[in-house]
Amino acid sequence: MKITVLSSGSWGTALAKTLCDNNHDVHLWSRSQEYSDAMEAKRENFRYLPGFPLPDSLHLTADLAKAIENTDLIVTSTPTQYVRHSLEMLKEHKTTAPICNVSKGIEVSSLQRISEITSEILGESHPFCVLVGPSHAEELIKNMPTAVVVSSQFNYLAKMVQNVFMNQNFRVYTSSDLVGVELGGALKNIFAIAAGVIDGLGLGDNTKAALMTRGNVEMARLGRALGGFEETFNGLSGIGDLIVTCTSKHSRNRSVGEMLGKGLSMDDIKAKLGHSVAEGVATTKSAYQLAQQYKVEVPIIEQCYQVLYEDRSAAEAINYLMTRDAKQERN
Amino acid sequence: MKITVLSSGSWGTALAKTLCDNNHDVHLWSRSQEYSDAMEAKRENFRYLPGFPLPDSLHLTADLAKAIENTDLIVTSTPTQYVRHSLEMLKEHKTTAPICNVSKGIEVSSLQRISEITSEILGESHPFCVLVGPSHAEELIKNMPTAVVVSSQFNYLAKMVQNVFMNQNFRVYTSSDLVGVELGGALKNIFAIAAGVIDGLGLGDNTKAALMTRGNVEMARLGRALGGFEETFNGLSGIGDLIVTCTSKHSRNRSVGEMLGKGLSMDDIKAKLGHSVAEGVATTKSAYQLAQQYKVEVPIIEQCYQVLYEDRSAAEAINYLMTRDAKQERN
Repeated sequence: MKITVLSSGSWGTALAKTLCDNNHDVHLWSRSQEYSDAMEAKRENFRYLPGFPLPDSLHLTADLAKAIENTDLIVTSTPTQYVRHSLEMLKEHKTTAPICNVSKGIEVSSLQRISEITSEILGESHPFCVLVGPSHAEELIKNMPTAVVVSSQFNYLAKMVQNVFMNQNFRVYTSSDLVGVELGGALKNIFAIAAGVIDGLGLGDNTKAALMTRGNVEMARLGRALGGFEETFNGLSGIGDLIVTCTSKHSRNRSVGEMLGKGLSMDDIKAKLGHSVAEGVATTKSAYQLAQQYKVEVPIIEQCYQVLYEDRSAAEAINYLMTRDAKQERN
Repeated sequence: MKITVLSSGSWGTALAKTLCDNNHDVHLWSRSQEYSDAMEAKRENFRYLPGFPLPDSLHLTADLAKAIENTDLIVTSTPTQYVRHSLEMLKEHKTTAPICNVSKGIEVSSLQRISEITSEILGESHPFCVLVGPSHAEELIKNMPTAVVVSSQFNYLAKMVQNVFMNQNFRVYTSSDLVGVELGGALKNIFAIAAGVIDGLGLGDNTKAALMTRGNVEMARLGRALGGFEETFNGLSGIGDLIVTCTSKHSRNRSVGEMLGKGLSMDDIKAKLGHSVAEGVATTKSAYQLAQQYKVEVPIIEQCYQVLYEDRSAAEAINYLMTRDAKQERN
């Protein structure tokens, strides 16, 4: 099967390698001709996934028309806030190939999920699926066992993508809850920031486990209001991805939180990280606005919003969360 | 309120300290007069929770009759396989005080939960509740924010215990699902062993997050068969406690798994740890037998059982789990 991956970040590259392991004809597209040529020269994605030789069978290209010509599947791993642009490029090329999106987030300007943006640009009948779950590129490329979930409104596509990706190191489950699967992957980044705050304040495992558990309750509550199934948030795209992001040293979202917990302001952090502040900062704003719009109680998301956008101190936010009225566990 | 804590392990001591912070009249009972006297001399639980001075108001005693005389609540933190003995002692003393159990497990000899053992010994009408959740004693004693859940068939008791324990560092939720809350606390120790195996084999965060997510699905499935509510397993006593135990360096269960992953046999590990092998080793046997009895599909628990009791290698078990047939996420 010919499969095209856009673009050559760390996750796109790790997935491209997995697809090569499964003997597909894989084309990894880069926006920059120069970087594509440099990778070709070294046969290594030295900027985003250094230290791993690219599979011999992997085609590198910066020519989009050629990359997607007669392709059977397009995997999009563009960061959420730029995915609209990628989809518009694909529209210009009149692509009919199914899209498998692997990035996570909610577009801030529209509050749309990526499936909604895709429908808007390529049409509702364009075959689309999302593949997400707890997965660091740095681990998949080393063949460490990884499990993810694929979801689509097109059943055949979910099963096809499951079959295309699955191997002994990469286990793919299917789910029929597209909304829930997309939201799980997106919303968990908010709690990754909060987990970083807990690390930055020097608090412990008890506090972080409580955050993840109650954070998952909030994801499920908001997800249900937006049309997802509650049980999806207990799956790989929900609690699974939440766990990996909140506990990982690799996560940019967690690092932003850690700096906040140590007392840096968002201005300091932006200055430090440059233009690419973590995805969860935007997602917090989107989720906060969605929760207000749908009148959903999300105390942790609210406190994250206030810390990120209204200069509330992280310690005050934690204290507020711990001293709320006594509650039943679910309500 | 007079509250008696049996006995002076690390968790009993941390809870006794929290109860002192809330201005209760707290009596911490030790089985050994000698150790109780030694703690009194140092005002420190130097064996199980060294480095923390005991609150001035905490009474230390080895005299059970005196400890429980006119008490309003008895907190039992005895290890599960010995809790029957503690309850029989309480029966001999004709105690009528409510029991709040804080230990986690399933009795291997009877496959009973602690509420069932209590009913058998003290009678079904004896007020009983369970208080569990993601909580290391070493963190609570340092006032790190911690959240737990209390559950009882007696509503008034759950609310009373919530009120007795809750403060700004210790948040207590109530739940009406006693079976689910008890099982969550018990079953998670199985997956803590499996998480240790993953660490011992040098695998990554992806693998561990997949284990925790799919482990939680198995806990919920078995829990539902035994009369618990599925949603409870997404709460503090389920996924919350699972996260903290699987990721913590403190957990004995995780350590056992890590040694297995590094290739040690259970005989080597027993020789190394002496008589007190981790609770999860017994729980794996209990859970495996319950799953067979109730015909519940629990592939991870089965593999753990085979590794612990039938000399299957850890690597084989992981490989088996990754190469099962393609599945839907829930079924």
